[in-house]
Amino acid sequence: MTGTLDWLKEAAAAREAAGLVRRLSVTKSADIVDLAGNDYLGLRHHPAVVAGAVAAVETYGSGAGASRLVTGTLDVHEELESALVGLTGAPSALVLSSGYQANLAAVAGLADAGTLIVSDEHAHASLIDGCRLSRAAVNVARHNDLEHVAELLARRDVPRAVVVAESVYSVLGDTAPVEDLVALTAEAGAMLVVDEAHALGVLGPGGAGLLASIGALGAEHVVATGTLSKSFAAQGGLVLADPVVRDHLVNTARPFVYDTGLAPASAGAALAAIGVLHEHPELLPRVHANAARLAEVCGIPVPDGAVMSVRMPGPHETVEAVERARAEGIRVGAFRPPSTPDGSSRLRLTAHADHGAHELERACAVLADLVPAPV
Amino acid sequence: MTGTLDWLKEAAAAREAAGLVRRLSVTKSADIVDLAGNDYLGLRHHPAVVAGAVAAVETYGSGAGASRLVTGTLDVHEELESALVGLTGAPSALVLSSGYQANLAAVAGLADAGTLIVSDEHAHASLIDGCRLSRAAVNVARHNDLEHVAELLARRDVPRAVVVAESVYSVLGDTAPVEDLVALTAEAGAMLVVDEAHALGVLGPGGAGLLASIGALGAEHVVATGTLSKSFAAQGGLVLADPVVRDHLVNTARPFVYDTGLAPASAGAALAAIGVLHEHPELLPRVHANAARLAEVCGIPVPDGAVMSVRMPGPHETVEAVERARAEGIRVGAFRPPSTPDGSSRLRLTAHADHGAHELERACAVLADLVPAPV
Ligand SMILES: Cc1ncc(COP(=O)(O)O)c(C=O)c1O
Ligand SMILES: Cc1ncc(COP(=O)(O)O)c(C=O)c1O
Repeated sequence: MTGTLDWLKEAAAAREAAGLVRRLSVTKSADIVDLAGNDYLGLRHHPAVVAGAVAAVETYGSGAGASRLVTGTLDVHEELESALVGLTGAPSALVLSSGYQANLAAVAGLADAGTLIVSDEHAHASLIDGCRLSRAAVNVARHNDLEHVAELLARRDVPRAVVVAESVYSVLGDTAPVEDLVALTAEAGAMLVVDEAHALGVLGPGGAGLLASIGALGAEHVVATGTLSKSFAAQGGLVLADPVVRDHLVNTARPFVYDTGLAPASAGAALAAIGVLHEHPELLPRVHANAARLAEVCGIPVPDGAVMSVRMPGPHETVEAVERARAEGIRVGAFRPPSTPDGSSRLRLTAHADHGAHELERACAVLADLVPAPV
Repeated sequence: MTGTLDWLKEAAAAREAAGLVRRLSVTKSADIVDLAGNDYLGLRHHPAVVAGAVAAVETYGSGAGASRLVTGTLDVHEELESALVGLTGAPSALVLSSGYQANLAAVAGLADAGTLIVSDEHAHASLIDGCRLSRAAVNVARHNDLEHVAELLARRDVPRAVVVAESVYSVLGDTAPVEDLVALTAEAGAMLVVDEAHALGVLGPGGAGLLASIGALGAEHVVATGTLSKSFAAQGGLVLADPVVRDHLVNTARPFVYDTGLAPASAGAALAAIGVLHEHPELLPRVHANAARLAEVCGIPVPDGAVMSVRMPGPHETVEAVERARAEGIRVGAFRPPSTPDGSSRLRLTAHADHGAHELERACAVLADLVPAPV
């Protein structure tokens, strides 16, 4: 039989023609300055974090072996959940195997046919997929537009509603008006799910995130999600919520129930990363100082978090800039359609606490040459 | 504000009344015989596998730090993909962060609005969620009913089709007629996605899975998915497919594109587990011998793989049996509605290569007392 893959080959040719091909290439860590990745605290090679991963593998083995609901819940999962509660002040925490699955679980688990979801138009793919997996009607609200959110909520004809947002948006790096969202959803009798993937470890008291910074994590209608794969230097996802919500997800959220527990090494690493963050509060101002320097050199406003976005003329120029930076030992991210919310092409830069002045200035010298002159 | 969580509280009360509450409890490995987990080869604490995880953490750090498409592809990911190709003979392999996400990526990535999906009614939650995420029409075929699959394919009014099945079904442990499915889909111009989660490491030459055992992995219309969290003792997911399919998923499958790469420790552990399996082909017959002994004591047919299912009178009896076994140091799995495809309640037992005669007989003595007498 031939021809079954013809439509895939046609799609590949169209990508090629549009300059939108994505290819995998191996990153060798030696001698590059990584402004593309998301380990904002730079803890992936920190001795205590590596030791946390190693100790967990030696104690618990290399995998959890089963769903958390069968024999796959280990002491290290509970310790990590306690540490997340300790860091954020949330009433309870649930750890899942990825941030992607945490979003699928939280959104699909809290919305059913009797629910309207109002999702910000810049929401991450995993939040969008969570919306799709739920049986809820989904309305997309204009980005960070509180009036639009309120209007959509007011028009609903089903008993329940869930508003979906990110505290720091992953592509553009801007923040959501979380305080207003918390108040608005409380008033409307809606739940609020905020993905703190890019805020945990970077914003809020001690890196507790944006919801913690306004004391919103105790409210029963507020749910935070997040990942262990960025500031916490590992892999995995998390949900911070009222114990009633946690219990509901444990019982009903398919990406939690029908999934193997998080690998012990990842749990142990994240646990150690939270410990390092606690002992080294200076990591946070370092991230912000490095972000400010990068923003300055790129001629863009200083971001609240660690993520910056630089608009480029088009996809080809974006790829070319990434390649030129790469040739100089600097890695920057590229976002091209369909990954950008507005169809633009952009460089994405991230600040990291572990970049010293020398590396940072080396990167800045390269960037100054690459980014378009501010208009 | 109060009352937002009322519907969750009502759902919790209904679960309680029906005897269907799920609770997390920590598993301590000392002194239990685990017939509930899925590490069929018993490699989670194997020195070489632990060493593989530790070496990867020390070399690559505790997390991948970014999407595989940004700076998150590491040598260990490529080595693991090569080892999976070596084990199975597949034309290419792609590693993802969980088996759940591998299924979401493969199914949603290969089906669009111009596709009909025909999915077996016993398909795993992750395959079902993959169907939902796609924009395809989904028809559910009666379990292992080839005629029904053929009929649904013949009736389609869209250009493409994807048939979805598991090689070893996760709850009942029975196998799919994969050879017929491969032929039938070839004839119908459809693709075939087979989840080999419970077959890899257990069935086929050297543990290469059921598709490899019939030489089907080279066919362009055949795609296998799987997990690193069962026989391979780690965490992560995989897709084995024609390079055109791999390329398509790399470019378009959201649970791959918008997700952090697999943690190095998990990749390193799985890589080592494949090595141990290669050096110790005797692990396979050990799994099967242990499965045969457990099946005998439970009065059920010997399974093709490592998964066995024992029908129980109801959910309360099932929970009670699990608790009684637990009190004797034996862990068995329970499936109650809605996790069973047919609404029955069942014990789920798994065979493991590392259970010696002494442990196995201790487990058998307990089981003989627990399972209903065969009718
Ligand atoms: C905002 C946001 N949410 C969720 C995720 C998914 O997290 P993970 O990579 O841990 O699956 C990401 C990126 O990876 C993200 O940027
Ligand atoms: C048949 C099947 N597919 C996929 C999965 C998901 O794999 P993972 O746990 O690696 O996400 C499971 C169970 O966990 C399974 O039983």
